[in-house]
Amino acid sequence: MALGVDIGGTKVAAGLVDAEGAILFQTRAAMPARGSAAEGFGAVQSVIEAVFAARPDARSDLTRIGICAPGPLDPVTGVILNPPNVPCWRNFPLAAEVLRVFGLSARVDNDGNAAALAEAIWGAGLGYRNVFYATLGTGIGTGIVFDRKIYHGRTGSAAEGGHVTIDYRGPKCGCGKRGCIEALSSGPAIARRARERLVETPEADSKMLALAGGNVDGVTAEIVAEAFRQGDPLACEVMRETADFLAVWTGNIIDLLEPDVFIFGGGLAQVMSAFFGRIREQLPYWCVNQRFAETPMVLAKYGSDAGIAGAAALCRI
Amino acid sequence: MALGVDIGGTKVAAGLVDAEGAILFQTRAAMPARGSAAEGFGAVQSVIEAVFAARPDARSDLTRIGICAPGPLDPVTGVILNPPNVPCWRNFPLAAEVLRVFGLSARVDNDGNAAALAEAIWGAGLGYRNVFYATLGTGIGTGIVFDRKIYHGRTGSAAEGGHVTIDYRGPKCGCGKRGCIEALSSGPAIARRARERLVETPEADSKMLALAGGNVDGVTAEIVAEAFRQGDPLACEVMRETADFLAVWTGNIIDLLEPDVFIFGGGLAQVMSAFFGRIREQLPYWCVNQRFAETPMVLAKYGSDAGIAGAAALCRI
Repeated sequence: MALGVDIGGTKVAAGLVDAEGAILFQTRAAMPARGSAAEGFGAVQSVIEAVFAARPDARSDLTRIGICAPGPLDPVTGVILNPPNVPCWRNFPLAAEVLRVFGLSARVDNDGNAAALAEAIWGAGLGYRNVFYATLGTGIGTGIVFDRKIYHGRTGSAAEGGHVTIDYRGPKCGCGKRGCIEALSSGPAIARRARERLVETPEADSKMLALAGGNVDGVTAEIVAEAFRQGDPLACEVMRETADFLAVWTGNIIDLLEPDVFIFGGGLAQVMSAFFGRIREQLPYWCVNQRFAETPMVLAKYGSDAGIAGAAALCRI
Repeated sequence: MALGVDIGGTKVAAGLVDAEGAILFQTRAAMPARGSAAEGFGAVQSVIEAVFAARPDARSDLTRIGICAPGPLDPVTGVILNPPNVPCWRNFPLAAEVLRVFGLSARVDNDGNAAALAEAIWGAGLGYRNVFYATLGTGIGTGIVFDRKIYHGRTGSAAEGGHVTIDYRGPKCGCGKRGCIEALSSGPAIARRARERLVETPEADSKMLALAGGNVDGVTAEIVAEAFRQGDPLACEVMRETADFLAVWTGNIIDLLEPDVFIFGGGLAQVMSAFFGRIREQLPYWCVNQRFAETPMVLAKYGSDAGIAGAAALCRI
C-alpha cells in the first residue's frame, strides 16, 4: 500500500494505491496556494487525515508518504523552493513537516518525474528500462526513468523536456526561451496557432469559430480538438502542424537518449494519439537513429489520476 | 594496465594506458578502410601485436582489450554494423575476431562514448556523477556517462547530441536533418558561414581571405580560428555566432539532462574555450534551469589521444 499526495495550484488530492498501482481511494480539498505557508500545509494535512479516517487500516501499512509538488523543489531534502503556482511556500521544508506531524518520511518530486515513475513501474512503461514520459496539456512536462529510478540530474532539475527548443528564432515561450516545444505544441500554443489561422483565412468558415461562439479569441485547444474530431479542415491542419513539431522534438530526444518507450499523458494526449502515425512517418527526417521505428509511442495508463499515482509511486523507491 | 585500440577511417592506433589514465606507449598504422574485411582486421591485429612486441610484460596484465570504432555498432555484441567511414566492415564481429585471435575479450564502443568515459574516470570529469562530453571538430560527437557508466540507450545509439536540432528550418546537416548543432557549429559549418560572410561583405578586407591565399573557397575552420586569434573582426563575428549556437544547444542539454559538468574536446575545443564565458552569458536566455551557472564548462584532458584513452577506458567497465 502506498499513499500519494498531489499538490497543485488550486487543489490538493490524496489517494491510496495498491502494490499493482490501482487507486483504491482518493479525496481532495482546495489548496490555498496564496495563503500563508501554514494554511498551505494545513490543506495537505487535511487530505492525509481524510485518507486515514476513511481507511484506518491503511496507516499501519505505510512507511512513507509520496508527494507530487510544484517545482522547483529539491527531491533530496524535500524542500519546496519558490513555485510560481504555489507562492505560499518559499523554501518550505515539506518533507520535514510531514515527518514532524505524521511521523512518516516523505519523498517529494515534481509532477512530470512522479508521473513518469508511475508509468514505468505500474503503467505503460512496465517492462522497459529507459522510459521517456511527456505530459501534453497547458504546458509540456517530461520525466525520465532509467531502471525504475527517476533521472534527476545535478540538482533535481533535469527532464525539463518541454523547454527543449527546436527553433531558436521561433515564438517566445513563457519561460523566456524561444521555440520550446511547449511554445509550439502545448494547449495554449495550439490555440494561438489556430487563432492566427482563423484571422489569416476568414473565408475558411471553420467549425472552430462556431464552437467558440463566433469569437476568435475564445478558441481554445479543446475547441481545436473538437473541431478536428468533427473533420474541420483548418483544425486538422493545426493539429498536423502540432504533430510535426512533436516529431522534430521526439527526434531530438531519440538522438540524445534513445529511450525504450515514449509515453504521452496529459489532457491533450488522447487527441494527439491520432497523430502518432504521422509523427512516426516524420521521424526519418528528424533523427539519425536508424532504428527509431522500433521505439513504441504509447498513451499513458494514468489520465487525470497521474498526480496521485505518481506521488504514490515515489513511496516505492 | 589497459590496452586501447582506436580505429578511424584512415589510421588505426593502439596504446597502453596505466591505472591513472596516463598513456605509456602508443603505435599506429594505416587503416585500409576500403579494402576487404580481413585486411581491415589485419591492420587492427598489427597494431595490437606491435604493442605486445614493444611491451611484452604488458600482455599478462591484460584481461580484455578496449576498442573505439566507427559507428553504428552494437556495444553489447561488439559487432560493427555499417560504418560509412570504414566500408570494409558490414556486420563485422570485431569483438569475436579479437577474442579468436588474441584470446582476450573486447569491449567495443564509438569514439564519443569512449572519450566521454576516459574523461569521466581519468580526465576532466573526475569526481562528477553525470558527465556530458562533446567533441567539436569535423563533426560534433557526444557521450553521456552516468556514475562512471556509458549511457547507451536502447541499442547503443544514444548520445548523438551533435544531431540535436535547434533550428528545424535551418541549414541541412549531413545526416539529413536541418539545424543540427553539427550543421551550425562544426568545423565545416564554421567555414561555410565564414565563406558566406566573405562573399556578402567583400569590403571587410578580412585576414581570412589572405590566410586562404585570396581564395574564398579555401577558407577552413582552422583559418577562421587563426584569423580570430589575430583579431580579425569578421572571424570574431563568425566565432561569436558559433558560440551563440552552442549556447542554445547547451541550454537544451541542461534542461533535459542537467549534467554535473560539460567537457569539450576535439580539434576546435581550444579555440572555442575562449568563448566559454560568452556561452555562459547567453545561457540565462536558453535554459529554464535557474542553477545553470554552477555547472562547470571545461576543456577535455585528452586531446588527440582521446581515442586511445577512450578505448583503454572501455577495459575498465
